[in-house]
Amino acid sequence: MKITNLDRIEKIPVDMEGAKDVLKQVPISREDGAPTFSFRVFTIQPNGNTPCHTHPYEHVNYIIEGQGAVVTGDGEEIEIERGDFVLIRPDETHQYRNKSATDPFVMICAVPKEHE
Amino acid sequence: MKITNLDRIEKIPVDMEGAKDVLKQVPISREDGAPTFSFRVFTIQPNGNTPCHTHPYEHVNYIIEGQGAVVTGDGEEIEIERGDFVLIRPDETHQYRNKSATDPFVMICAVPKEHE
Repeated sequence: MKITNLDRIEKIPVDMEGAKDVLKQVPISREDGAPTFSFRVFTIQPNGNTPCHTHPYEHVNYIIEGQGAVVTGDGEEIEIERGDFVLIRPDETHQYRNKSATDPFVMICAVPKEHE
Repeated sequence: MKITNLDRIEKIPVDMEGAKDVLKQVPISREDGAPTFSFRVFTIQPNGNTPCHTHPYEHVNYIIEGQGAVVTGDGEEIEIERGDFVLIRPDETHQYRNKSATDPFVMICAVPKEHE
């Protein structure tokens, strides 16, 4: 078994078109022997966001900290905050935004391991 | 997409041999269209525990609240608390225990959807 926490894991800036002020950690990885899915954690800095896009695989989220929003393909902005769970189904357009100007937004973003 | 939180989901007592004072919720389920894995949440009441067992699939945990321990096949007790991540690989013997006499221990327990 593996036991870890976010303090032990380096945060890597996300260099992807459309991402603004996003850091990535992978606490539970296929490299650890996770056979099916991985747990990544994204920190979106104040006023930052992930890309608005689609892909043929899901996200399952748990919001660890902060005040944010998930934006749909229709441009609808739905507030999400600490304690919320989100399922983005395959091929659903989505974007995550940090709605705070001062505090980080931190979320688990689990995916099939191939897409870690 | 689906957005939810634990306040909206009924807690079902776990009726399994070896489980003591454990409640189950399934915030993100295959019934919601999760194609690969599910997010379950277990609340272990003070001094409660899950069964000590093995199975041919993994658990990936995030500890939402509380002070607990995961026990290995050798009987080693490793403390886990809010903010920790755990990977139990397939066929690893494991048990989760709430080490508090007063407060609940709450964790995400993600599994392949077949084992929800």
